[in-house]
Amino acid sequence: MPFSLTLAHLGPTGTYSEMAAIAYADSLRAQGIESELQVHRTIQGTLQAVARGEADQAIVPVENSIEGQVPASLDTLWQSEGLQVQQTLVLPIRHALISTAVDLSHVRLVRSHPQALAQCRDWMAAHIPAADQQPSNSTSEALAHLRENPNWAAIASERAARLYGLPILAQPINDQPDNCTRFWVIGPQESPGGSLTSLAFSLPANVPGALMRALAIFARRQLNLSRIESRPTKRSLGEYLFFVDLEANARTPEVQEALGELAKVTEDLRLLGSYDLLDLSRP
Amino acid sequence: MPFSLTLAHLGPTGTYSEMAAIAYADSLRAQGIESELQVHRTIQGTLQAVARGEADQAIVPVENSIEGQVPASLDTLWQSEGLQVQQTLVLPIRHALISTAVDLSHVRLVRSHPQALAQCRDWMAAHIPAADQQPSNSTSEALAHLRENPNWAAIASERAARLYGLPILAQPINDQPDNCTRFWVIGPQESPGGSLTSLAFSLPANVPGALMRALAIFARRQLNLSRIESRPTKRSLGEYLFFVDLEANARTPEVQEALGELAKVTEDLRLLGSYDLLDLSRP
Repeated sequence: MPFSLTLAHLGPTGTYSEMAAIAYADSLRAQGIESELQVHRTIQGTLQAVARGEADQAIVPVENSIEGQVPASLDTLWQSEGLQVQQTLVLPIRHALISTAVDLSHVRLVRSHPQALAQCRDWMAAHIPAADQQPSNSTSEALAHLRENPNWAAIASERAARLYGLPILAQPINDQPDNCTRFWVIGPQESPGGSLTSLAFSLPANVPGALMRALAIFARRQLNLSRIESRPTKRSLGEYLFFVDLEANARTPEVQEALGELAKVTEDLRLLGSYDLLDLSRP
Repeated sequence: MPFSLTLAHLGPTGTYSEMAAIAYADSLRAQGIESELQVHRTIQGTLQAVARGEADQAIVPVENSIEGQVPASLDTLWQSEGLQVQQTLVLPIRHALISTAVDLSHVRLVRSHPQALAQCRDWMAAHIPAADQQPSNSTSEALAHLRENPNWAAIASERAARLYGLPILAQPINDQPDNCTRFWVIGPQESPGGSLTSLAFSLPANVPGALMRALAIFARRQLNLSRIESRPTKRSLGEYLFFVDLEANARTPEVQEALGELAKVTEDLRLLGSYDLLDLSRP
């Protein structure tokens, strides 16, 4: 029996998370590693499967170029001690309007994941201004009942339309042509080291200037922050966790020293991983 | 005819945004100012009504203590030149499970706004683990069809249950007792000045250290950042807008100087407003 990895991702089949997982599986195959996909209903469940040892790695969305952070991924990773980011993937997102309607003028209701609806807001305002919008749990779930309801449409990928044998009325319909989503590959082993390092930390409460003191540690060493996100600590309004991406390898002495200093001025500090980028948006 | 303000908010009736608008209208009445509410279907529409002069002020959610930033409010305010934050309100959020089911064991489906579902995730896992979840456009919209479907439930406020004459099965069901949402009161006039100042800026592309250079301007003057949020510029993945709250009045010389320096190191800089807090979470 060949060595095979189990890759957990958000389902059902046809979601962009599944496309990212397939692209990652292809990159593993090029290295001689076989893998199989494992579908989950929520991002939390996807990461918990890896934490429990029921899957080897999880592929979860982190941020989209239009809609920004994916709260469930950031929050669950913060709560999952022992999981680290192994790699990051960037996937281009091209949305299609899928419907059994004769043409656009017959579309009365558009269903999709709230992020996908938001990414096509201007296109819908211009082409189907009178259609109602209804959120769904995933882009694939929105495809249910399209056959019985010719006045309904869904926003999902061309691939999803093919998988479910449904016609496409228009594509691409995303407002920005450069719509991309970034995913993290997450596993239970120590991250391999790479050109990016992700950290998360909370700060002691009611200490003025605490965030600046933490960020100055990077500035003094010319370590470039490529991203900073805040998430609520969920304890009280106005207390945040900060998620920071550095353009540097955590294995270098500068980053090691910065982490040592950071531990002294933060309340809780987590190295989420140090890893490389696999860019799938360029052919 | 007495002087009266029109206050735009997200509907339909029974939403937490309406509760915030009512609380704000009460605070105006205490100052002798009458007002009337104007319901909108989206946060975008709420702010556009003020930009077009069809309403005097808008009350929009900015951040929740569990689910974090409200992207539509931040993005729309960035795009709406000429609107400023006049005041901020903090409203306690207490969720109820509303259903015509005999008891919890009969609930098969729970509908609500995705943020409300997320805020009750642990409670549902403990009490109704087998129930499916379905997102809706607002907490109030989830109350539709509850009477015909005794196996359905909705998450909304006790007030919404009363308004629609529907029974409550359990409350409060939010996982964190200190669940609060912060709202902004937004108007077309210059903000009045107050103990908080909100800014937003974008940075020149591909300039390493640009974020640190901007933040150091506040640090040098001991100006405390109480919050930093990033939102994608929507141009390309990895380019962000930063939304910053300072614990200082924009009318002071220190903040004026900081704004002058900030204008030199940012690409686009917007003073969103300087205003005071009205805390509704304390009786």
